Amino acid sequence: MIRLRDSRVGMLLLMPVPLTDLPDTGNCIPENVRHLVCQTRHFVVENAKTARKIIKLLGHPLPLAQLQLSELNEHTPPDNIEALLDPAFDGHDIGLMSEAGCPAIADPGALLVKRAHEKGIRVRPLTGPSSLILGLMASGLEGQRFAFAGYVPANAMERRKRLLQLEQRSRHEDETQLVIETPYRNDAFLTTLLETLSPSTRLCVARDLTGHNEWVITRTITEWRQSSSPSLKGFPALFLFQAASHRQ
Amino acid sequence: MIRLRDSRVGMLLLMPVPLTDLPDTGNCIPENVRHLVCQTRHFVVENAKTARKIIKLLGHPLPLAQLQLSELNEHTPPDNIEALLDPAFDGHDIGLMSEAGCPAIADPGALLVKRAHEKGIRVRPLTGPSSLILGLMASGLEGQRFAFAGYVPANAMERRKRLLQLEQRSRHEDETQLVIETPYRNDAFLTTLLETLSPSTRLCVARDLTGHNEWVITRTITEWRQSSSPSLKGFPALFLFQAASHRQ
Repeated sequence: MIRLRDSRVGMLLLMPVPLTDLPDTGNCIPENVRHLVCQTRHFVVENAKTARKIIKLLGHPLPLAQLQLSELNEHTPPDNIEALLDPAFDGHDIGLMSEAGCPAIADPGALLVKRAHEKGIRVRPLTGPSSLILGLMASGLEGQRFAFAGYVPANAMERRKRLLQLEQRSRHEDETQLVIETPYRNDAFLTTLLETLSPSTRLCVARDLTGHNEWVITRTITEWRQSSSPSLKGFPALFLFQAASHRQ
Repeated sequence: MIRLRDSRVGMLLLMPVPLTDLPDTGNCIPENVRHLVCQTRHFVVENAKTARKIIKLLGHPLPLAQLQLSELNEHTPPDNIEALLDPAFDGHDIGLMSEAGCPAIADPGALLVKRAHEKGIRVRPLTGPSSLILGLMASGLEGQRFAFAGYVPANAMERRKRLLQLEQRSRHEDETQLVIETPYRNDAFLTTLLETLSPSTRLCVARDLTGHNEWVITRTITEWRQSSSPSLKGFPALFLFQAASHRQ
């Protein structure tokens, strides 16, 4: 049921957090967003430990013990999600935070946003770093059409099949494909990409975006095979590729 | 040919700009990004008039006449793009700016980024507002897989066909679809969406993101048909939808 908006009902504030653990947040969190975090007492977070560190880093004036932090992650039973919005009906704004970057994208936070819409709670997205957008901007690949496919299967044969399917889609739709992998598997994943994709496909690797080890390179698969690449191990990385289309 | 990086060569800085013309940029531009704009003298911009206004708003200390602003937009001949990078080889950083939001996404800036990679110029993406990410976060729709399709065809029959194709893709890939329209056509486009998509498809309309008239609502097509909606006319808007999948 859609309830009417009520000004005594709090908002759900979608709060991006830094992509790295650098102490200076001034390169990725706008000042007004930082202020909003500092004025909020009720948070729904992907990981309480990480969130406490970030909230402190952003200069929250209250002792952490006085803040209410509830976790929402892949272990949260779906039936428990609705109650996370209760503070809004007592007039409190609720801040939703992911472990890194923008909440509700590539994390379970979208379920909370969905419930907020169903209950007529205003949802307000705040500006901050998104590795997907930073990587896409920096790639020089097609930015008029793109798709984020998340993780690809771990099984070698299925992974190869999925990558070829995404490359085919890129060719047909003239669209950039974005995929991610867990940091410790990044180097192996790059090897698989170089073995699987067509020589003329352009691949961008974006490592440690906004961090001290940021490194963004776009080359054709042929060029990648001929050059050496620095290690990705331990760094967050994003992989983007675009197949050569008939139009090019 | 890939040239080796040279520290005397400037960088290409990808500078997001606000989505609205509100005087306070503190809700969307991080302080360090603002500083970088203020330290830059060479810009490549989609529209010189808009860019001058933004650069002034961000507090650039130099008179605008002392800055070098070159335009890159849909009228720029492809052969003229490479020369826009010349200042980098004199050791100057170059700032790339779109008319609104993040450069090189849904604008011609990606062509400059592509050339920069080819010439071995370091590309550094900066954090700022992206209507696509803000809208996706706030939609509560699937954030693990999504695709941006840009504009759909203007012709009524082709438009309907394309929307049904995207809805089909959303169903098969369990993926959120993002589309945009020019502001003056937004109300008519919403009507077409409500007439074309399936009753169980969830549609999000995100109007004037980060602005005073921000309004983000997600409903099923059935619910949209039964409710009244405020006007979208004159506001930038983003439309996102997700078909009910077999998994739901």
